[in-house]
Amino acid sequence: MALAQHGAYGETGVWRQTYSPEWVAAQELVAGWGREIGMDVRQDAVGNVWGTFAGREGGKSIVSGSHIDSQCPGGRYDGALGVIAAYIAMRTLAEQYGPPRRTLELVSLCEEESSRYPASNYWGSRGITGLIAPEDLELVTGLDGAPIADGMREVGLDPAKVREAIRDDLDCFIELHIEQGPLLEQANLPVGIVTGITGPRGYAVTVTGRSDHAGARPMDTRRDPMAGAAEMISGVINTALRMGRPAVTTVGSISADPNLSPAVPERVSFSLDARHPDPVQRALLFERHEGLLQEVAKRRDLDLAWEVVWDHDPQPCDPELVALLQDAAREQGIPEMLIPSGAGHDAQQMALAARTAMIFVRSKDGRSHTPAEFTSAEDAAKGIEVLTAALYRLAY
Amino acid sequence: MALAQHGAYGETGVWRQTYSPEWVAAQELVAGWGREIGMDVRQDAVGNVWGTFAGREGGKSIVSGSHIDSQCPGGRYDGALGVIAAYIAMRTLAEQYGPPRRTLELVSLCEEESSRYPASNYWGSRGITGLIAPEDLELVTGLDGAPIADGMREVGLDPAKVREAIRDDLDCFIELHIEQGPLLEQANLPVGIVTGITGPRGYAVTVTGRSDHAGARPMDTRRDPMAGAAEMISGVINTALRMGRPAVTTVGSISADPNLSPAVPERVSFSLDARHPDPVQRALLFERHEGLLQEVAKRRDLDLAWEVVWDHDPQPCDPELVALLQDAAREQGIPEMLIPSGAGHDAQQMALAARTAMIFVRSKDGRSHTPAEFTSAEDAAKGIEVLTAALYRLAY
Repeated sequence: MALAQHGAYGETGVWRQTYSPEWVAAQELVAGWGREIGMDVRQDAVGNVWGTFAGREGGKSIVSGSHIDSQCPGGRYDGALGVIAAYIAMRTLAEQYGPPRRTLELVSLCEEESSRYPASNYWGSRGITGLIAPEDLELVTGLDGAPIADGMREVGLDPAKVREAIRDDLDCFIELHIEQGPLLEQANLPVGIVTGITGPRGYAVTVTGRSDHAGARPMDTRRDPMAGAAEMISGVINTALRMGRPAVTTVGSISADPNLSPAVPERVSFSLDARHPDPVQRALLFERHEGLLQEVAKRRDLDLAWEVVWDHDPQPCDPELVALLQDAAREQGIPEMLIPSGAGHDAQQMALAARTAMIFVRSKDGRSHTPAEFTSAEDAAKGIEVLTAALYRLAY
Repeated sequence: MALAQHGAYGETGVWRQTYSPEWVAAQELVAGWGREIGMDVRQDAVGNVWGTFAGREGGKSIVSGSHIDSQCPGGRYDGALGVIAAYIAMRTLAEQYGPPRRTLELVSLCEEESSRYPASNYWGSRGITGLIAPEDLELVTGLDGAPIADGMREVGLDPAKVREAIRDDLDCFIELHIEQGPLLEQANLPVGIVTGITGPRGYAVTVTGRSDHAGARPMDTRRDPMAGAAEMISGVINTALRMGRPAVTTVGSISADPNLSPAVPERVSFSLDARHPDPVQRALLFERHEGLLQEVAKRRDLDLAWEVVWDHDPQPCDPELVALLQDAAREQGIPEMLIPSGAGHDAQQMALAARTAMIFVRSKDGRSHTPAEFTSAEDAAKGIEVLTAALYRLAY
């Protein structure tokens, strides 16, 4: 609740964009928590906040955390709960067992949601893995058009030093997160151990026909891009439905040009987001989508163009860590299930720098990215118990 | 070409909104033409320009004309050609035969396109038929939000006097217009005699489901309004196609809320424009559309709402005038065909005050409402010959 005050939106929402004053205040709060329990706290070159308990034996670090930026508006739990969980787990371990054998680190990452910088693409964790190209600092722009470098400077970060955020001394990254879907609720379970993160691909599709008068042009002589787009949208959604879980396909955005009631549009554009965690099924899903778009366009004499806007490979979680999390849950008497992640997460990017795993906690009605998202304190506590037990096994 | 200079847009387009400076200049040009050939010229209370050759016998007037406001951008021919045609026809008759037996009037109407005041609904001809309600002067607003009464005042018209535009002394109104569709071109004919004007109904449809994460929500548990809207749009368009000519159904406008690639929208809204000139077939078309929307919404567990935004009864042309136009064409040796109008026209509204008929001239590629619209001078001349011969039969 303390964290949710920074950027509070309505009764239960949060509006906290990376490098905004609310975000700065929230990162300072997290830093203060770390200092209070004796961590060595610092902010890295992209703005991620790290809190460290140095391990007696040194070596590569055991890391847990998530992000504190939000959708606009988003809820209190997405991301923030993972930072709080890591803090509580590490505080509990330090209180009960003292300094760890291996180095334990808490991380509060920035711009996972891309809600201020749409093309930032896991900015905070890309800083850690070294995947921020120098040109990204100017090319990645905010909703106001200003480059992300400007936003960094506004909060006292030096864009020229971005590569100082790179870490090559991480062993593993364990992220607790709300599920954002309904599977745990349907299974009546508080906790899920994530087997892997799905591989999303985003297309921007444009269908071009010929604008005509809505009254004077007979149906059988039209080249109507709205009719074509509607058939394509129905088709791709049905394709994913028939392929079955965990395939998902979403058309979330659409526009017509012109966008006038009494005219056939010249052009209809829509987004197409398709995801599957299995590489073979994923390729099949994309192939079917692309084939369907082409078939409809050809049959209807429409021009078709698409651009792949993003494309992330599926990221399986580290099998040893998955087994360790399952053992930890069993030990604590907490019922769990294996579950795929249909959403993207920092863990996907962090996999380039560390072994990764994730713990999901139950989401009410499967909701997220809305002030209506909710996870009960009981479910959150069960997830944190699993995390704590796992970190104990790894670091003590 | 002289008229097209007022509001010229690009190489071949026109952008001429009612009560704009370009529109004022265009109306003044038309008024000047009328005065040059000895007409008694006046502007009525809503801004229509009338030019009159008083008839020796008096009695109700024989009227021809159309509108000079345009789409934004529109072409040079839609509306304007009908005003020019009436001017040329009446000038020719006066030059050859002197003053008419019955009163002949040219009219240049305003705001047929609703391109400045979307809800104005044939403002110029409604002024003549007396269907402008006093509250319309404030309720009908422009794209800038200002009421139409303000626009009238800006060009020196007094909104309080709007009812002075009413005419109860009209016998018939004959409008020449570009076809706006491809039927004459397909039949290789220059001229069509319009049998009637179709009856359009416009719906604003809203489909509401549940916004969800594009990755985390399994397909089989979604309430996806985009999937529902796509199925509805495909369905209604296919319904009109299967019903056959002259049924037409168009979805020209669409929006999603939220409109984000990685989220199932909460709500999708779209326009639905359906038209048929036959009252029985028209009712059947609407019934099938409404039934389909309801069936899809129910099966997909989506909330459905619609509003009928406009609804105009089909308007058959006066059979005597249709026969007279056919005879006139035959007499001039001009090949023609009977043709329905799928577009709305002032003639539809003027039918409340006069017997109406229309002459269509061939449109290149069936285009209109675009700078690309084109009618050859030869085809326009053939349409004007038919109009001239018809006005001679009626007024001399």
